[in-house]
Amino acid sequence: MQIAMVQDKIVPLEKLEAVYFDRGTYFGDGVYEVLRSYNGKIFALEEHLQRFANSLAAIEITSVDTKQIRSRVLKAFDAAGISNAQIYFHITRGSAIRNHNWDADLKPNFFLTVTELADDKETKTKGIAVSTHPDWRWKRCDIKSLNLLPNILARRDAAKKDCAEAILVDEAGLITEGAGSAFFAIIGRTLQTTPLGFNILPSITRKFTIQAARNIGLEIVEKSTTLQQATSADELFIAVTTKDIVPVVKFDNKTIGDGKPGKYTKLLIQEFRTFTV
Amino acid sequence: MQIAMVQDKIVPLEKLEAVYFDRGTYFGDGVYEVLRSYNGKIFALEEHLQRFANSLAAIEITSVDTKQIRSRVLKAFDAAGISNAQIYFHITRGSAIRNHNWDADLKPNFFLTVTELADDKETKTKGIAVSTHPDWRWKRCDIKSLNLLPNILARRDAAKKDCAEAILVDEAGLITEGAGSAFFAIIGRTLQTTPLGFNILPSITRKFTIQAARNIGLEIVEKSTTLQQATSADELFIAVTTKDIVPVVKFDNKTIGDGKPGKYTKLLIQEFRTFTV
Repeated sequence: MQIAMVQDKIVPLEKLEAVYFDRGTYFGDGVYEVLRSYNGKIFALEEHLQRFANSLAAIEITSVDTKQIRSRVLKAFDAAGISNAQIYFHITRGSAIRNHNWDADLKPNFFLTVTELADDKETKTKGIAVSTHPDWRWKRCDIKSLNLLPNILARRDAAKKDCAEAILVDEAGLITEGAGSAFFAIIGRTLQTTPLGFNILPSITRKFTIQAARNIGLEIVEKSTTLQQATSADELFIAVTTKDIVPVVKFDNKTIGDGKPGKYTKLLIQEFRTFTV
Repeated sequence: MQIAMVQDKIVPLEKLEAVYFDRGTYFGDGVYEVLRSYNGKIFALEEHLQRFANSLAAIEITSVDTKQIRSRVLKAFDAAGISNAQIYFHITRGSAIRNHNWDADLKPNFFLTVTELADDKETKTKGIAVSTHPDWRWKRCDIKSLNLLPNILARRDAAKKDCAEAILVDEAGLITEGAGSAFFAIIGRTLQTTPLGFNILPSITRKFTIQAARNIGLEIVEKSTTLQQATSADELFIAVTTKDIVPVVKFDNKTIGDGKPGKYTKLLIQEFRTFTV
């Protein structure tokens, strides 16, 4: 008899719910998105749906209707009634007995949560410390996939160093991005950030940050930042959906600027706010 | 109210079972093993348990007792009563609301299946065709983790080419291993295979294959194989727990040797059998 065991309980294989055979767990065979709302309004929904569609296509999960995802997101957000909400959702290829190959008729699994966003006032006003970690990730970080073990291990390393984020550094010594954020340096009147490619996520907050930087008159340079450039930059910050722009005041234990959020970073936070009202 | 949505059904977050919040699904935050039995006897159980312990340690899942895992495996195998069984098990860091960081008191989740092994007679007597794919995986392939999206995408690419396995090639043009197997070339009287390192799994079948090769008098060279060496090799094969040694007769559409399993490969299959009785 084919059997399964959950913790120490034996169950006939066919009696176990499909969620236990999710290819999301077996292989990380799925993609996800994180959205947030500002005061009852979901930010950049269409951009997130478009990126999600790109991720699905990249790993050949077909038969998913973006319109259906949109209506599910809106329905769940309405039901939750949370003003400043974090909306997470993923789609996995489906549930099946473990096998690298998959059947064409496999039905994707959808999962979503709407939760209260943590308050980020202190983070934004004081800034955060970050530490570097080798970028151990795979070669298709442009796909927002459920394969996030290198990210959480890097974040864990940062946490041990009392840092809020791990900044990932590739083999050439260049910064790619944060374990869960995009990374930016301000040098003079220039905003520098990693160019889009297979090695970073096409961050939506990055896109709006660049727009904000243009609006306040900064020059944009899409070029990877070296460790030396980072430690000697005038200002550093990260950008992530759930908190938008977060000043970085310590980088590998080195104080950036005067150890307080920089003037352009503060202007960018203000400018970003105009997108979210 | 914080809510979850499964397919199109809304559920209060706190009403949903823990399995939906498994970090194995959110991040691939877990490690696994695959064992097999030959005629009612589990093969290399201690080796698999040791590697599993190494994987757990590498991703800092502590508080798991290997003795308990062993007794669960034996109990499940007994309960199933399958003579030629495939035993899969994984441990994830536990279930929690999604957060890159984890709490120290998180309780790991254990999941295991015992299923009937597919018959591999034809595969072994006729050999298989393989195709190459860029090795897109992360930099710690020595950890047997649930981050397997690059592996299944590579295997998918192989399947489209009517190939049974994808052979992964790094940026230097060197073969690392198969998407789900170790890779070997026989050149003259030499068995060549990738040296152990962060870029391949410390395959247990590889270890026994090397022992078998020593027993039949082959020289062992632990060196990465180039594409040119592979296509011009006298014999090729892959090795994997569920099927042990499987001859490769076509490599990127090029016939290897005379297109039939080679003489040393056949001897190795025989010699391997002596370990499993």
